Amino acid sequence: MTEVKLSREQREQGTHFAPKYDSQGLLTTVVVDSTSREVLVVAFMNAEALRLTRQTGKVHFWSRSRQKLWMKGETSGHVLLMEEMLVDCDQDALVIRATPKGPTCHTGVPSCFYRSVDPEMEDSVALVKVKT
Amino acid sequence: MTEVKLSREQREQGTHFAPKYDSQGLLTTVVVDSTSREVLVVAFMNAEALRLTRQTGKVHFWSRSRQKLWMKGETSGHVLLMEEMLVDCDQDALVIRATPKGPTCHTGVPSCFYRSVDPEMEDSVALVKVKT
Repeated sequence: MTEVKLSREQREQGTHFAPKYDSQGLLTTVVVDSTSREVLVVAFMNAEALRLTRQTGKVHFWSRSRQKLWMKGETSGHVLLMEEMLVDCDQDALVIRATPKGPTCHTGVPSCFYRSVDPEMEDSVALVKVKT
Repeated sequence: MTEVKLSREQREQGTHFAPKYDSQGLLTTVVVDSTSREVLVVAFMNAEALRLTRQTGKVHFWSRSRQKLWMKGETSGHVLLMEEMLVDCDQDALVIRATPKGPTCHTGVPSCFYRSVDPEMEDSVALVKVKT
């Protein structure tokens, strides 16, 4: 893909959207519920997933484990309808505010972040389910 | 680092915290403001950054660009005090709810996500500053 050369000032303060992909061509993407603001899922986009998300308004990702492009909800129907896309200062991460059409996590709960980590407990018993 | 072997059921539903680091030994970490729930910053932790965060309650990261461990706020004083840590279904990403002691972004604003992307505009003029 073509990398756009911007000064630090332009990258951080300008109007030019120039995503900075990592060495594997990926951008970290955080999807939050546009109403509750809870984090629903964290995943990765390549340039094509970003293009399709902008074009269709439905969130697409690149699956690192399956090495393929996927639209979230393509089999379950639980798509994420994009309301707003935000980019961070150095343009290597995105936040997408979306309306979820059903539970986002494949386990059937609204958010993938349904367990808290007790920092003081041993790893084997550190996780506790929380309401999401 | 030692990878703990868990079944899919144990990994997704159990109490065992067994972070799944990527090929570079990193976990994606999203820090949200514990009060407003806004996303403040997205960065990466290695095992040592995670250990220090759990031990001290102050958020530590691994900087991919500088290839070094850093405590957020170590020079600015704008540390992130951890209130709660959440892990996702497959344990390869964390959400940390924190109280920020000052602006989180190095540009001086509360959140690194201070610009929205207009999906229909050309890249060169797609970014608009938003209130964070």
